[in-house]
Amino acid sequence: MHQAVIATVDIVFLTIHNGRLGVALSKRDKEPFQGGDALPGGYIHAQEDRDCLDAAVRILHEKTGILPPYLEQLQTFAGAARDPRGWSVSVAYFALVHYRVIESAHHPDVAIFPVDALRRLPFDHNDIIATAVDRIRNKAQYSSLPCHLAGETFTLPKLQKVYEACLGEALNKVSFRRKMQELAVLEAVPGQMETEGAHRPAQLYRLKAEFKNGLKSLARGL
Amino acid sequence: MHQAVIATVDIVFLTIHNGRLGVALSKRDKEPFQGGDALPGGYIHAQEDRDCLDAAVRILHEKTGILPPYLEQLQTFAGAARDPRGWSVSVAYFALVHYRVIESAHHPDVAIFPVDALRRLPFDHNDIIATAVDRIRNKAQYSSLPCHLAGETFTLPKLQKVYEACLGEALNKVSFRRKMQELAVLEAVPGQMETEGAHRPAQLYRLKAEFKNGLKSLARGL
Repeated sequence: MHQAVIATVDIVFLTIHNGRLGVALSKRDKEPFQGGDALPGGYIHAQEDRDCLDAAVRILHEKTGILPPYLEQLQTFAGAARDPRGWSVSVAYFALVHYRVIESAHHPDVAIFPVDALRRLPFDHNDIIATAVDRIRNKAQYSSLPCHLAGETFTLPKLQKVYEACLGEALNKVSFRRKMQELAVLEAVPGQMETEGAHRPAQLYRLKAEFKNGLKSLARGL
Repeated sequence: MHQAVIATVDIVFLTIHNGRLGVALSKRDKEPFQGGDALPGGYIHAQEDRDCLDAAVRILHEKTGILPPYLEQLQTFAGAARDPRGWSVSVAYFALVHYRVIESAHHPDVAIFPVDALRRLPFDHNDIIATAVDRIRNKAQYSSLPCHLAGETFTLPKLQKVYEACLGEALNKVSFRRKMQELAVLEAVPGQMETEGAHRPAQLYRLKAEFKNGLKSLARGL
């Protein structure tokens, strides 16, 4: 038999906080790196998990108290050097939620850090986060992915800010609205308007039910 | 300690044969599915492989005799049901080469099958191949990926046929050439022309050295 390989799952759990893309890290409760902030992660439980996505959902729930509506496989990070316990395979996923979902879970060991100002994290977690941020920046160009960061209902100006936080650049309002129309993933919430400050009331939108756990892409980007 | 998880690598090894996208399968020399055609694959060797890509290169070379210039991680397929030996994680890669490279390796256990007419393969290999074909179709829209299928040198009409085989549709010659110019990954081979049939001699091109192991993408697709 071959020398055993450690099989784990790590989740890059992203949200928008204070207008910036942030990652939820969880304090490690055991060695290695005990007490350090790291990606929520853990061993695959062969007796319990049917597949990898199953393991990711279980682990994220254990470590943060949250069942995220949108999880996507990111990439697998594997090798002899990334984990002091031995040769390891980490199947990385990313999840996206509105900040209020993390806040209302009140998990004492979870904190949010801006992705563009992270200190050195355990294992290769900085690389895994950088890969997730690249993926999201890329998909924000042409898909509905960032909508999962915008909460249950949102105005179009708020959604635009979410896209801008993902892309790291300002977008033109007119072309943003045209692209959203073209994507056709949103529906107006009947009779719901939001009034904020001196602005006139703005229509609230939500993802259509069929896109709540999914994604839609445009042939041409923003 | 947790129940051990099997850690393997499988490679979807693609080429163009008779104008169609094909996958190189390798006859399995042991159980399960001994004698069946399947993706070249094998266990990660923790003592030998530094990382997953290393394992993929080693395994593909052992099973086909070929060291491919372009390998990319595809996705990880994992779960309790996909391998009769137990809970398994397969990190899948895809590789692209010109048909002549496979032909000249003369490996007795390797054969090429068109991807759109595959019978039922061992494990979840049909799913893995379908995922690879989707990825290539998608990337052929906006990147230099298919160039790795075109051989060391090629004329533009031949490269267009490679793109068309990947995309499964005919392309407009003028816009194809404009997109290739925009990608700027090709260089003319000095003094080399190809004469074929009644056509006038056509310039031969090759990938610029810096793109031989890589990829370049356009902001907007073909």
